[in-house]
Amino acid sequence: MMTYSHDFIPFSIKNQPEGRVIQAVLEAALQAVDPRRAVEQYLQRIGQTLTVAGQGYSLAEYRRVFLVGVGKASVAMAQAVAAILGDSLYKGVIITKNLPEEMPSELGRVEVCRGSHPIPTEESLRSTQRVLDLLEEVEPADLVLCVFSGGGSPLLTRPVQGASLKEIQQLTSELLTCGATIQEMNAIRKHLDQVKGGKLLKAVHGARVITLILSDVIGNPLEIVASGPTVPDPSTFADALRVIQKFDLESRVPVSIQSILQKGVDGHLEETLKPGDPVFNRTQTVLVGSNYQAAQAAAAEASAHGLQALLLTTYLRGEARQTGDMLAALARQIEATNQPLARPACIIAGGETTVTLRGNGRGGRNQEVALGAVEGMAGLKNTCLVTLATDGEDGPTDAAGALVSGSTLRRAQGMGLDALDYLRRNDAYHFFEQIGDLLKTGPTGTNVNDLNFIFAL
Amino acid sequence: MMTYSHDFIPFSIKNQPEGRVIQAVLEAALQAVDPRRAVEQYLQRIGQTLTVAGQGYSLAEYRRVFLVGVGKASVAMAQAVAAILGDSLYKGVIITKNLPEEMPSELGRVEVCRGSHPIPTEESLRSTQRVLDLLEEVEPADLVLCVFSGGGSPLLTRPVQGASLKEIQQLTSELLTCGATIQEMNAIRKHLDQVKGGKLLKAVHGARVITLILSDVIGNPLEIVASGPTVPDPSTFADALRVIQKFDLESRVPVSIQSILQKGVDGHLEETLKPGDPVFNRTQTVLVGSNYQAAQAAAAEASAHGLQALLLTTYLRGEARQTGDMLAALARQIEATNQPLARPACIIAGGETTVTLRGNGRGGRNQEVALGAVEGMAGLKNTCLVTLATDGEDGPTDAAGALVSGSTLRRAQGMGLDALDYLRRNDAYHFFEQIGDLLKTGPTGTNVNDLNFIFAL
Repeated sequence: MMTYSHDFIPFSIKNQPEGRVIQAVLEAALQAVDPRRAVEQYLQRIGQTLTVAGQGYSLAEYRRVFLVGVGKASVAMAQAVAAILGDSLYKGVIITKNLPEEMPSELGRVEVCRGSHPIPTEESLRSTQRVLDLLEEVEPADLVLCVFSGGGSPLLTRPVQGASLKEIQQLTSELLTCGATIQEMNAIRKHLDQVKGGKLLKAVHGARVITLILSDVIGNPLEIVASGPTVPDPSTFADALRVIQKFDLESRVPVSIQSILQKGVDGHLEETLKPGDPVFNRTQTVLVGSNYQAAQAAAAEASAHGLQALLLTTYLRGEARQTGDMLAALARQIEATNQPLARPACIIAGGETTVTLRGNGRGGRNQEVALGAVEGMAGLKNTCLVTLATDGEDGPTDAAGALVSGSTLRRAQGMGLDALDYLRRNDAYHFFEQIGDLLKTGPTGTNVNDLNFIFAL
Repeated sequence: MMTYSHDFIPFSIKNQPEGRVIQAVLEAALQAVDPRRAVEQYLQRIGQTLTVAGQGYSLAEYRRVFLVGVGKASVAMAQAVAAILGDSLYKGVIITKNLPEEMPSELGRVEVCRGSHPIPTEESLRSTQRVLDLLEEVEPADLVLCVFSGGGSPLLTRPVQGASLKEIQQLTSELLTCGATIQEMNAIRKHLDQVKGGKLLKAVHGARVITLILSDVIGNPLEIVASGPTVPDPSTFADALRVIQKFDLESRVPVSIQSILQKGVDGHLEETLKPGDPVFNRTQTVLVGSNYQAAQAAAAEASAHGLQALLLTTYLRGEARQTGDMLAALARQIEATNQPLARPACIIAGGETTVTLRGNGRGGRNQEVALGAVEGMAGLKNTCLVTLATDGEDGPTDAAGALVSGSTLRRAQGMGLDALDYLRRNDAYHFFEQIGDLLKTGPTGTNVNDLNFIFAL
């Protein structure tokens, strides 16, 4: 069903029995958050009744059904919705980052547009206009189904009056590198945009709105995924301005942007839509997939293969290399005393780490987690750490992650590669490329953030 | 038996049932590595037979028994050895950092000297001379018992010819702040000292040597604790010089020091004693206590109180604040899904973190782990993270660690304290002092590094 390459297990373990177990566990994780399956779990149709997470809607009561989708998984999510709705789907527009090579036939009535990620461009603006053009047609008696997934914020973008695209681009690029959390980043984005922070609801003319969310954010705060176009926003203009101050961005963010936020603080601009706003009486929002579901499925698959499995956390964050070293500390304890689990064991830890750029190498946070674990894993037997960006795209590379085993350091030394030096230059991609231990799934069509797996077999 | 304050549980939980459980678990950890108990587990005497980790020695075969001890736990370790040996102990000298207020009566035949930590001083040199004076008396037919524990390297110090104390002090202070590991630091120390890296054996005139080690080093490499005065040393002059280069210390470490190391590399100086040296045929070395034993005992005590217990690792390292945030990520998962353990639960993670100093506040690595967890723990119910330096001395403070609960952030905000600001200034001590959640055990007399406990009750 999913279109990624199933031939992603690195060469070094591919033809070994453990390679097959590892492949099975990783595939189970990805399949569990296949956007299509995720949607189908929460959206069913029997005759004229559409059931959304247990709540029933009679399609006969609605004039038409519209579909809006944004995010890296929107093609697959839209495909599932279109298949379920069949002829009842009137029209739709979705915005995604990667267009599929072959457009799924279910999407005949759905226009598929492209936007830019992580910095919005004119393309994002044009595609957003297509969404708004569609919603122009919506009437109060219609039903609007929304599917939102990770990466949506720069895809669905319509700056407020007074903020130019160029200014938003400059702002975004500062926010991406200053160390702000996604919550902090989105507090600002929402207050400079006409369709984020619940404000897309202003364009639906009072129609009922059902939103399905595939979350790529730690802890699954629904208002954060794709900047919550249809979800109540607790953040304020004051919060947004505080983020600028917290990261000392006053001199790096355009003055016009800051003065918009200040005008908002002074009460001269409309806030985002807040919890309790009556508009939300006509909305339902459902989390259909998350890092946790993927991690759980991986644990179940590991158990099915006779491994002891432990879901450690889905809240990992912090510096990537440190996370790698910490995971290696767990692997070492298994080797030393069979704790926290006896072999054969699999520990699963999900979340989203960050990389503080020091060098100008190539890599992504998942590859850097792996590189950060090379020294700590050295010498361990039948043990490896596998890192995986569930969207298949780790940083600006064609890899999803990498594999580190107890022999990685030795093999690297044999090839004259200094792991520490590659780490210093944030060049994990070239390290693992030469070792032959990159994971290359290609774009998976889903996006529930990152997963790390310790296998002690 | 141990002399620390048993009244160390912070005020905020002291009179609550969970306070008693937490106190019991922490005490179990400390008691398990009570140096006296640790020694007694591996050293027994029945009649004239001394049994050391299963190996028997007939005291009748040895003319006299000498005792040498170095490290933060040497008083308690020496006390145990003296009690076991009774009249068979001829004489001893030990060097410690903190002299007990009242000298244990068993130490009548043992001279207790003081040295300086973490930078050696004249006092360390004088005390080291006392050890060497004692060993002057030793003859081949004698038995020398050594007890080494953490913090020993600067206490037992005798620079090689050509290196002055002042130069060693300058070097040590550079090594302590450059980010070098203890392995790297000790590779240098051993090659600039006459009694480290096995070289103390040169002073025992061929007598048999038994060494008992209480380890404060991750993974318990015996040659690292107290710089292994009686243990084979795999490191070389070349390794030592490489550390200087790796951390760009060429301009900050005295030239004379570097030229000594270079002379060694060129083969003009004697190496440390290497594995396989016949001198080690007359030595036995036993690990009597470590972080793992403390962690295991804590897990057992938690189980006895009806908690699910998980020993996560004893290999934790890395930046303290990140470690705190990572431990909070585990606590969040327990709250969300009862994973990796169902409540009531206790997760134990041992090791040694590092603090990269940014500000000039007061604190220690254990307090900084706790401060780094404040935001991640916020809002969790009946959950806390407790950090503990097992020696009772976390950094240059009178606290052993701190407690963070789900309410810490809220309470801090109520008092106008900005946790992030205290973290930025490395001022964990003053944060937790005001909150009232410092742990103050006083010096415990033991030292097996650090322990972190997540309690979800």
